[in-house]
Amino acid sequence: MSAAAHQPRIAVVGAGGLIGEALVAELQLRGLGGSRLHALDDLRDLGRVSADGSGQLAIGDVAAFDFSRVELAFFCARSSTAQRFAPAAAAHALVIDSSSAHRESAGVPLVVADVNPGALEAIGARGLVALPCSASVALATAVAPLAALAGLERVDVATYHAVSGSGRAAVDGLAAETAALLGGRSPRPRTFGTQIAFNVLPLVDALGGDGSSAEERRLASETRRVLGLPGLQINATAVRVPVFFGHGLAVHALLERTFDLAEVAAVLRRSNGIRLVESAVSVAPPTPAGSALAPDHVYVGRLRADASRDRSLNFWVVADNVRKCAAHNAVSVAQILVNRPQ
Amino acid sequence: MSAAAHQPRIAVVGAGGLIGEALVAELQLRGLGGSRLHALDDLRDLGRVSADGSGQLAIGDVAAFDFSRVELAFFCARSSTAQRFAPAAAAHALVIDSSSAHRESAGVPLVVADVNPGALEAIGARGLVALPCSASVALATAVAPLAALAGLERVDVATYHAVSGSGRAAVDGLAAETAALLGGRSPRPRTFGTQIAFNVLPLVDALGGDGSSAEERRLASETRRVLGLPGLQINATAVRVPVFFGHGLAVHALLERTFDLAEVAAVLRRSNGIRLVESAVSVAPPTPAGSALAPDHVYVGRLRADASRDRSLNFWVVADNVRKCAAHNAVSVAQILVNRPQ
Repeated sequence: MSAAAHQPRIAVVGAGGLIGEALVAELQLRGLGGSRLHALDDLRDLGRVSADGSGQLAIGDVAAFDFSRVELAFFCARSSTAQRFAPAAAAHALVIDSSSAHRESAGVPLVVADVNPGALEAIGARGLVALPCSASVALATAVAPLAALAGLERVDVATYHAVSGSGRAAVDGLAAETAALLGGRSPRPRTFGTQIAFNVLPLVDALGGDGSSAEERRLASETRRVLGLPGLQINATAVRVPVFFGHGLAVHALLERTFDLAEVAAVLRRSNGIRLVESAVSVAPPTPAGSALAPDHVYVGRLRADASRDRSLNFWVVADNVRKCAAHNAVSVAQILVNRPQ
Repeated sequence: MSAAAHQPRIAVVGAGGLIGEALVAELQLRGLGGSRLHALDDLRDLGRVSADGSGQLAIGDVAAFDFSRVELAFFCARSSTAQRFAPAAAAHALVIDSSSAHRESAGVPLVVADVNPGALEAIGARGLVALPCSASVALATAVAPLAALAGLERVDVATYHAVSGSGRAAVDGLAAETAALLGGRSPRPRTFGTQIAFNVLPLVDALGGDGSSAEERRLASETRRVLGLPGLQINATAVRVPVFFGHGLAVHALLERTFDLAEVAAVLRRSNGIRLVESAVSVAPPTPAGSALAPDHVYVGRLRADASRDRSLNFWVVADNVRKCAAHNAVSVAQILVNRPQ
């Protein structure tokens, strides 16, 4: 890949989806891709086109694509598509997969660019890299500096998941349900089975036999892996809220040693990918709608000591789940791979 | 009050507000009040009328009312109104105050009817009873059976506060902001200062000097008092969500002894004021919009062990903040007082 190191040929599989669109925009923003970009998707999503800086991009059939034509392939399609096509693509190119298909595969690193870029060292000119789910990216980014500063013993987290985590149909569904209710009509829940407009659903993804949800288990296992802390206690409750973009997290963290709140703030302030919003009466804490204005950071706010015990603190995290946690992380991982010395 | 024990003369101060309306409806439902009901409010809220079973109810000026005309007075007005008029009313009548005015006054019991009715024993035929804020009512109701079963060591809670906790203007504001956004116009945030439609605000009530909010401090101190557990660790994050009615709470509780999940479920199933929604793939967990259909219970769902440590469990709580946590609790307290042996 050395010759094309700074302008690799790129394929984006799932280019018609929310993450795919954001990813193409992010590539343009960073001067990657351009005319060398192949937009691909499943046959059933082919009709759509993805807007980019230079207009429209035709989407081709991923099944008919020859991955030896590219150095870099992003998969931001459904998991079954990645399962089917990503391993073959990885024989020719660097594959960066946003889906859950390869997150637990042996030898596939799980990477948040701002947190554990070192995990990319094992990757050659070809191969697979998996990206965690958006909520794990936000959580791992926010707690990594605390782990480095004072050690992490335990994290309790409750989430406020935006509907866009379930794709474009869920975004359209929230708008349609809301319009129906404001118009005095009954909403027709689609993506979530239950009304999400003006409601809160305390279940994200499938319920498991132990009563936890798939998203809650992902948050715990992925965050442990990205942080390299297999013994870290993480206890999560994942809840869906009627927000279009931006996951929120209420985090309660128990550190291994006592700390001064000023040193925690200082380390967060200088950490990769984080913007600390100081807690002050005159400053509004970060919100999903507000963070959308500058969606390239994980915002941390409401930082405060937990008055009920030592070594414990609380904070609020919000990040654009599509742009920051998915697209921005994917392109950052790609840039690390592309720019490394050969 | 013995002669009129089952049909006391009643005043409702703040009858024009959301809680006042719900309270009048609840009184009708339980056969209390009727023609013997005096609807009162501040001068600046006088124009409004409150609907009841028999049509409309004129609202009189609380400042001009002679409280010796009633045996029972509910205050569900703003705190300043209760501060000004409730003590004088309590010289003549039993006063049940939903506001924060007297929650910390010496000698005033803080009562959740389903949890600590015994605290009413100190009250005679006149005097003041304070009610906790809605989120505390929901939390105390849900955790009281766990405290009795296995002892409570610690509670971490993140809330999903409905806008109606801030009154009718906030309900109208959410509808107006939502309509504006769906129509492509900029919302004009009023009650909360920041857009609440399709957004999440991680701050409920005023920010304190220690970084916690007034609502977070209330949740901790009121729940400790109602449970009679002054040493209980409670750590709260209070967050506003774009929901009209129904507060949600993600609760992580550490018990004093190990437990079997089945015994926890059994004790919740037979507890006062609680409806346990079993966790099953075929059963939707309780939601604010769903609980509104039968708003006289605190719903508990998503009950599960915390896999990260012993003695620890998670559950979700949702309750109608206006009807169950405020109006229903107020009338239940009144009924205990009215029906007790003289």
